[in-house]
Amino acid sequence: MWEKQVEKLVDSALAEDSVWDDVTTKALIPASQEGNAYLVGKSEGILAGIGVATTVFHRVDSALRVKELVADGSRVHPGDRLAAIEGKVASILRAERVALNFLQRLSGIATETAMYVEAISGTKALITDTRKTAPGLRLLEKYAVRVGGGHNHRQNLGDGVLIKDNHLVALGSRGVGLGEVIKKARQHAPHTLKIEVEVESVEQAQEALSAGADIIMLDNMNLEDMRQVVELARGRALIEASGGITLDSVRAVVETGVDLISVGALTHSAKALDISLELETR
Amino acid sequence: MWEKQVEKLVDSALAEDSVWDDVTTKALIPASQEGNAYLVGKSEGILAGIGVATTVFHRVDSALRVKELVADGSRVHPGDRLAAIEGKVASILRAERVALNFLQRLSGIATETAMYVEAISGTKALITDTRKTAPGLRLLEKYAVRVGGGHNHRQNLGDGVLIKDNHLVALGSRGVGLGEVIKKARQHAPHTLKIEVEVESVEQAQEALSAGADIIMLDNMNLEDMRQVVELARGRALIEASGGITLDSVRAVVETGVDLISVGALTHSAKALDISLELETR
Amino acid sequence: MWEKQVEKLVDSALAEDSVWDDVTTKALIPASQEGNAYLVGKSEGILAGIGVATTVFHRVDSALRVKELVADGSRVHPGDRLAAIEGKVASILRAERVALNFLQRLSGIATETAMYVEAISGTKALITDTRKTAPGLRLLEKYAVRVGGGHNHRQNLGDGVLIKDNHLVALGSRGVGLGEVIKKARQHAPHTLKIEVEVESVEQAQEALSAGADIIMLDNMNLEDMRQVVELARGRALIEASGGITLDSVRAVVETGVDLISVGALTHSAKALDISLELETR
Amino acid sequence: MWEKQVEKLVDSALAEDSVWDDVTTKALIPASQEGNAYLVGKSEGILAGIGVATTVFHRVDSALRVKELVADGSRVHPGDRLAAIEGKVASILRAERVALNFLQRLSGIATETAMYVEAISGTKALITDTRKTAPGLRLLEKYAVRVGGGHNHRQNLGDGVLIKDNHLVALGSRGVGLGEVIKKARQHAPHTLKIEVEVESVEQAQEALSAGADIIMLDNMNLEDMRQVVELARGRALIEASGGITLDSVRAVVETGVDLISVGALTHSAKALDISLELETR
Amino acid sequence: MWEKQVEKLVDSALAEDSVWDDVTTKALIPASQEGNAYLVGKSEGILAGIGVATTVFHRVDSALRVKELVADGSRVHPGDRLAAIEGKVASILRAERVALNFLQRLSGIATETAMYVEAISGTKALITDTRKTAPGLRLLEKYAVRVGGGHNHRQNLGDGVLIKDNHLVALGSRGVGLGEVIKKARQHAPHTLKIEVEVESVEQAQEALSAGADIIMLDNMNLEDMRQVVELARGRALIEASGGITLDSVRAVVETGVDLISVGALTHSAKALDISLELETR
Amino acid sequence: MWEKQVEKLVDSALAEDSVWDDVTTKALIPASQEGNAYLVGKSEGILAGIGVATTVFHRVDSALRVKELVADGSRVHPGDRLAAIEGKVASILRAERVALNFLQRLSGIATETAMYVEAISGTKALITDTRKTAPGLRLLEKYAVRVGGGHNHRQNLGDGVLIKDNHLVALGSRGVGLGEVIKKARQHAPHTLKIEVEVESVEQAQEALSAGADIIMLDNMNLEDMRQVVELARGRALIEASGGITLDSVRAVVETGVDLISVGALTHSAKALDISLELETR
Repeated sequence: MWEKQVEKLVDSALAEDSVWDDVTTKALIPASQEGNAYLVGKSEGILAGIGVATTVFHRVDSALRVKELVADGSRVHPGDRLAAIEGKVASILRAERVALNFLQRLSGIATETAMYVEAISGTKALITDTRKTAPGLRLLEKYAVRVGGGHNHRQNLGDGVLIKDNHLVALGSRGVGLGEVIKKARQHAPHTLKIEVEVESVEQAQEALSAGADIIMLDNMNLEDMRQVVELARGRALIEASGGITLDSVRAVVETGVDLISVGALTHSAKALDISLELETR
Repeated sequence: MWEKQVEKLVDSALAEDSVWDDVTTKALIPASQEGNAYLVGKSEGILAGIGVATTVFHRVDSALRVKELVADGSRVHPGDRLAAIEGKVASILRAERVALNFLQRLSGIATETAMYVEAISGTKALITDTRKTAPGLRLLEKYAVRVGGGHNHRQNLGDGVLIKDNHLVALGSRGVGLGEVIKKARQHAPHTLKIEVEVESVEQAQEALSAGADIIMLDNMNLEDMRQVVELARGRALIEASGGITLDSVRAVVETGVDLISVGALTHSAKALDISLELETR
Repeated sequence: MWEKQVEKLVDSALAEDSVWDDVTTKALIPASQEGNAYLVGKSEGILAGIGVATTVFHRVDSALRVKELVADGSRVHPGDRLAAIEGKVASILRAERVALNFLQRLSGIATETAMYVEAISGTKALITDTRKTAPGLRLLEKYAVRVGGGHNHRQNLGDGVLIKDNHLVALGSRGVGLGEVIKKARQHAPHTLKIEVEVESVEQAQEALSAGADIIMLDNMNLEDMRQVVELARGRALIEASGGITLDSVRAVVETGVDLISVGALTHSAKALDISLELETR
Repeated sequence: MWEKQVEKLVDSALAEDSVWDDVTTKALIPASQEGNAYLVGKSEGILAGIGVATTVFHRVDSALRVKELVADGSRVHPGDRLAAIEGKVASILRAERVALNFLQRLSGIATETAMYVEAISGTKALITDTRKTAPGLRLLEKYAVRVGGGHNHRQNLGDGVLIKDNHLVALGSRGVGLGEVIKKARQHAPHTLKIEVEVESVEQAQEALSAGADIIMLDNMNLEDMRQVVELARGRALIEASGGITLDSVRAVVETGVDLISVGALTHSAKALDISLELETR
Repeated sequence: MWEKQVEKLVDSALAEDSVWDDVTTKALIPASQEGNAYLVGKSEGILAGIGVATTVFHRVDSALRVKELVADGSRVHPGDRLAAIEGKVASILRAERVALNFLQRLSGIATETAMYVEAISGTKALITDTRKTAPGLRLLEKYAVRVGGGHNHRQNLGDGVLIKDNHLVALGSRGVGLGEVIKKARQHAPHTLKIEVEVESVEQAQEALSAGADIIMLDNMNLEDMRQVVELARGRALIEASGGITLDSVRAVVETGVDLISVGALTHSAKALDISLELETR
Repeated sequence: MWEKQVEKLVDSALAEDSVWDDVTTKALIPASQEGNAYLVGKSEGILAGIGVATTVFHRVDSALRVKELVADGSRVHPGDRLAAIEGKVASILRAERVALNFLQRLSGIATETAMYVEAISGTKALITDTRKTAPGLRLLEKYAVRVGGGHNHRQNLGDGVLIKDNHLVALGSRGVGLGEVIKKARQHAPHTLKIEVEVESVEQAQEALSAGADIIMLDNMNLEDMRQVVELARGRALIEASGGITLDSVRAVVETGVDLISVGALTHSAKALDISLELETR
C-alpha cells in the first residue's frame, strides 16, 4: 500500500508533466534507441527518495532497469552516482524531471533534518517534524524526515490530541480554564491517544502538569523558562520545545532538558538538494 | 475549471490531514460555538494564494464567511490582517493548518520571485520559472510565480519543444549534429510550437541560430559569452539565461542583453512566508 | 468534509444501484409528477443516519425538499414518521432503496449498541466498538455506535498502538518478552499515542503493568481474573475487556471493575432496523 | 474486471484502515522478519470470499504467498485451516483485519443463504436475494448469496422492471389501474426485460396475470392466498413470495407452489462468521 | 445522478482540452469583459444535447447565464439560434469547442436516427440502437437515439440476454444444440430478463421459437426469410432484424412484419451536425 | 503512461458495458472452456488501434494470449485476420464489443485520414486534424490521424495560440485591430508557443503577416485568394487552409501552395471500419 500511495503520487506528477505528450522526445528520439543514464549528486547532503525516483522510471516504462547505487540515508557528495538506469532513451528522458523533482525535494528535507540531528548529537532529545508540509506530499516528506534521523510528530489531526492556543481561546471565552480543558479532552478524546497541550508560560505548564497532560509543548519560551518547566515535570510528562528554533539555537534548547524539539522549517522551507541525470548512449 | 482543479488539490490536502477526524476539536469545541478569526502576516513578503485559503475554509464548511482583506500580489507586513473568517469555531480550527500550508508556500514563492523581479527592474528582461515544482502543485506554484511578477516557462512537456543536453547526447551518439537536430524537431514537432535549444558555448549558439532555432537557452555561460550570443542573435531568436543564477548575479546577467532568465529556485527552494491564524471568540 | 465523505459514499451507492437508469420509473412515472413520501419506522429501535438518508435524496435530485422529523439517537416506534420528502415522485422512487439501505443498517447498529449501553447503565464503564466494520463504511458505522451511546476505539491502524497476540508471537519467536515489547513500542511508536497491549492471563497483565502499558486489553478472560487485574492496576492503566461478551454477560463483566468493553458484534452482526418509505400523491 | 472491481473495494478498505500507517507494526516488527499464518475457522458455516481475502494480502504486499486451502462454498468447521499465508510478518499483520472483515461478512451471508436453501431442499423453488445490501458491497454480497446456493434477483434498478406498491400509488392517484400500468411498462420499458409486479391480494394477482405480467411478486400474502395465485397462474407467470419469510416459515411457503422466495435478511441482517488469523513464526 | 454522470463526462472533456490553461484567451481577453454568444445551427437536422452544452458552460463558469432557445428533439435549420449565453467572454471562449463537440455529435446521432424513423413512419416497428457506441459516451449516445425517435436496445451486457453466433459456436463445439442453449439460458440467467437469440436461417428461428425464446434476432436475413419467420412466430416472440440495414432498405425490411430493426450506424457512423458559436460583444 | 492513459479509457469503457456482469456469458459459457478467436476485417481500410484492442482483452483477462497479426497503419482487406486471441472463451466474449468499438472507430479515422493524404500525394502539404474529437477520446483519435498519415494540430487549448474570429470580435469591440491583437498575444502568451491567427480575407492575411504572425489560417477562402496569400507570405509564415475542405476539393486547395490543410471531418464524421470477431473452439 505504501507502494500504492507512492505510485498514485507519481502518476499524478507524471500526468501533470504530460510525459505521454513529450513533444521534444517524440520529435527527436528514435523509439528503439537504448541507453544508460545516471542520477548524479551535485552537492553535499543526505539522500532520500531513491525508491520514489525508481518508481517514477518504472511508471513511465516498466521495462527500464533501475539499479539504486546509494541507499536512502547515505551522505551524497558531488559527483556520486546515485542510481543507474538502462533502457529506452525516450523513456528515461520523459521521466527525468519528475524523478528529480521528488528526489531533490525529499533529499533536501533529509539534509536539513540531519543538520538539526547532528547539532544535538550526544543528547537524548529528538528532532520532530510538524504538519507544515507541502499539500499532498506529507507521507513522503515525513518519510524524508525519518531518513534524516528525525522523528515524526502527528501524521494528521486524527492521530494525536494537541490542544493549541486557539482551542484555549475558544474555551477560555466560555470560562473554561486550562485544567478543565485537559480533563474534558481526556474524557471525550479517544482513549488510545495521549493529551498534549501547548503553553506559553511556566504557570500554564504547571497547570497542565497538575491536570495530567501527557505532553507539554512550550511555544516560543525562553531558555530559563524551559529549564524550569523541565524541572517541574520531573518525567511526569514529555516536554516539547517549539517555535522559531534554528540550527544555531537548537543545541542550547536541548540543554534545557526538553525531550522533543519540533521544527516546521524541516519541511516548509528546506532547499532542494542539487541532483541531475546524465545520459550515456551507445 | 481552475476552481475545480483547486478544489481537488484542497480536498486531497484536507483528506491527508484527516480534518473530518480532528480528535482535539471533536473532544473540546462545542458544535454550536461561533467565532471570528484572522489570517495574519508574521513577516514581510508578497501574498499569493488567498483564494486557495478561502477555498480551504469553504470546503471544510460551506457556511463559513470568508472576507479576503488583501489581494494576491500585495505586499504583506507583520501584523497585517489578510482575511477574516466567521462561523463555526470547530470548522475554522479544522481548516487552519491546510489553509496556512497552501498560503505560506505560495506566498513564499511569490516573495522569492518578486525579489528577482525587483533586482532587474527597469530592464525589459523577464524572470521565468522552470518545471522544478513540488509534485502535484505545479498549477498553483506557477500561478504564484505570476503573482510575484514572473513569467511562466513551459507548463509541461507537451507545450514547448526544448532540446536539452541529454537529447543532444542521444542524437550525437548517432552522428546527428545540432543543426540537423533542430531541423528534425521543426519537421516532427507540432507546427504550433517554437523550437528552443539549450547550448553551452558560443559556437553551439551560432550553430543553433543558423539552423533557425526560435529560442536559445544559455546554460551556465559566463557573462562575456552571453553578451556575444546576444550580439550574434540580433533579435532573430529569444535568448534565455539559465543555471545557477542568484539574486546577486541576476542583474549582471540581464545586462548582457538576454531576454529571459529562468530560475529553478523560485519554486524548488523558496522559504514559506510566515503567516498565522488568530482566533477571537464571543 | 464529513459531508464530502458521506456524499462520496452515497454517490457510489447510487451508481451501484444504477439509479440514473431506473427502467421501471422511466417507463411509468411522468417526469412532472410531484408527491409526498414519508420514511416510516416498522419496528422498535434507535435512529441513526437520517442525515445520510437526506443526502441520498438530495444527491438524486437537489430539488427534493426533505424534512427530518426525528433526530439521530431518538427511539423509533412502529408507525413513527422519521422524515418527510416532497418533490418529483420519480426522484423519490429512485432514491428509496439506497436511502433505506443506509438508514436501516446504521439504525440497526445504533439499536444494538444502545442495548449494550442500557445493560450497563449506572456504571462508569464504556461500551466501545472495534475495527470489525463493513469494508468502506467504517466512518458511518462508528458514527452509528456513538449515536447509540457507545464510544469509538481506534479508527484505524494509524491512531492507536495495540499490541496483539500475533505481535507477541512474532517477537516471542525472537526471544523478546512482553515487557521488552512494550518498551520497544514506547520507543518507536509516535510519542502522541498510548500503548495498549492484549493479554490472556493475570501474569501477562502484571507484566504489562510493570512495563508501563497505558491500556490493557483482557482477551476472553474469566470474571475472577478480570477482577484481579483491575485490582492490580489500581488506576495506573485503563482496563478493557474483550472477546465473546454478549448482552447477557456484559453487566457481570462490567462489575469486575473494567473501564471499557469492546464488542465486535455491534458492527459485524447487527440486524437492520425495519424502516420503509410510504408514498402519498396528489 | 471482476478482479478490478474487487481490487478497488479492497484498496479502499485498506486505505480506510490506514494499513500503510500501522503504527504498532512499524514500531515492533522487524522489516525483514518472515513467517507463516493461517486463516482458521472458529465456528460452523459456509465459506465465501476466500479469493477476496487473498486479494487483500496481495494488495498489501504482492510478495506474500497465499495458498487457499478451502474453496468458496465449502462447509467450514471450527479449527479448519482455510488458507496459508507466507511472507513478511509485517505485511500479514497489516492485512489481517481487512481480510477478515471481508471474509467473515461474505461467509456470514453464504451461511445464512445455505440455511434457507437447505430448508427447502428437494423442491424446485429458488431462494433469491434483494437489493437490501450494504452500500458499496452489492457485487460481493450477491456473489456470497450464489456461493450459498441462492439465486440473484435484480442487480440494480437498470436490469429488471419491478412495479412496486409505490409505483401503483403514484399512478393510481392519476386513475391508472394495475392492468394499464403493466401495459404501459411493456410499451416503454426496454424490450429485453421482463415485467414483474408486486401485488397484495389474489384479485390484484389475477389482474396482473390478465394483463400479461411475466413475474408476480406476492407481498406478505398468507399461505392460502399464495396457493390460489399459483393455481390461477398455471405457469403463465413466475410467482415470487416476499416479505417477512423466515427460516421457520420458508418451507411452508414453498409448498404453496411458488417459484421464487426473496429474502432481504440474507444480506441486511446476516451475522459475521467467526474466523481468525493465527501466526506462526520461524 | 444523470446530472452527475453528465458533469463527470463534461469535466473530463474540459480537462482533456486544458480549458483552464487556454493560452490564447489568457493572453488576449480581459478578465472583466462581458459579452453575448449564440449557438447557431449551420445545417438541417435534429437537435440533441442542448442540456449537455449548457452543463459545459456552467462547469467552466457557474456564473454564465445560458438560455436554451430550442429543445432537444426539435428540427434545426441553418441560422437558427439554439441557445444564448451571457457572461464573461473568456469563459464562453474556453467552453466553446467542448460544448460544440458534445452538441454536434449528439445532434448528428439524433439526426441519423430520425431519418430511419421517418423512413418507416406509419408502421408499428421500432428503430433501435446497438452497443456500437463511442467508448465512454454510451449514456449520451443512447439518449440521442431516443431524442431522434429511436428506442434503446440493451444498455450493456448486464441488462439483457442475447445469445449470439459466437455463443452458439462455443456451445456447439460441445454438442449443445440451439434449443438446449435457450433452455440453459432460461435456467441460469436472471429470471427478470428475457431471452433473445440471434439466428441466421428460418430453421434456426423455428428451433428458437420452439425452445421458447422471447426475442429472435434475424442476422442479415433476406426479406423472404424474414417474412417466413414473422409468420412462424405469430406473436409468440418479438422479431428483430439486424445487419447491414440502410436508409434505402429499412422500409422493405419493416414491411416483412418484423417488430424491431437495430442499426449500428446510428451511433458508430453518424456525421456531426454543423453548429457554431457566434460571439457578440458590448 | 500512454499505456496508463489507454488502460484508463479501456477500463471505463469496460465498466460502461458491465462486462463483469455479462449475464449471457455467465449463464452459458463454462468457466473452463478455452478457445481461439480472430479479429477479422470486413471491409477495405487502414488499421488503427490494434494495441488498444489488445489492451481491452488483457484488462478483461490478463491470461488471454493476444497476437497482433497486422500492424497499425497497414491496409486491411475483407477477410484479413488482424489478431489472434487465445484463452478462456468467456473472457473473449466479454471483451469482444468494447475491443471492436475502439478498433472500428480508430480504424475509421485512420482510413478517412489516409484518403485525404492519398489525395494530395506528391505534394509537401500536410493534412492535420482539429480539436473536433469525441469527448474523452482525443488522445486516441489524434493517434489514429497520425496512423493514417496525417499530422496533429493543437492537442488542446494549452499548447498553441490560435486567435480565432471570436477573439477578434471580442477585441474589435474594444477597438483593438488585428495587428495589435497579434502583438498583444506575443507579449502575453508563453514565449515557447507560435502565434497563429485565423483570417477571412487577403487583407487580413496581409495585416497578420505584417504583424509577424507565425501561422495564418485561411478560413473558407477561395482558391484565388489562398494563392494570393501564399504569394504574399513568401515563407515568412506557415499558411493553413481550413473550413469545408472535402476529398474532392483538397487537391486543388493544396495546389494553391498552402502548407497545411486542417480537416474536422477526419474525427467528427468518420465512419467506423467494419471489423468482427470470429470464434473457433476446441
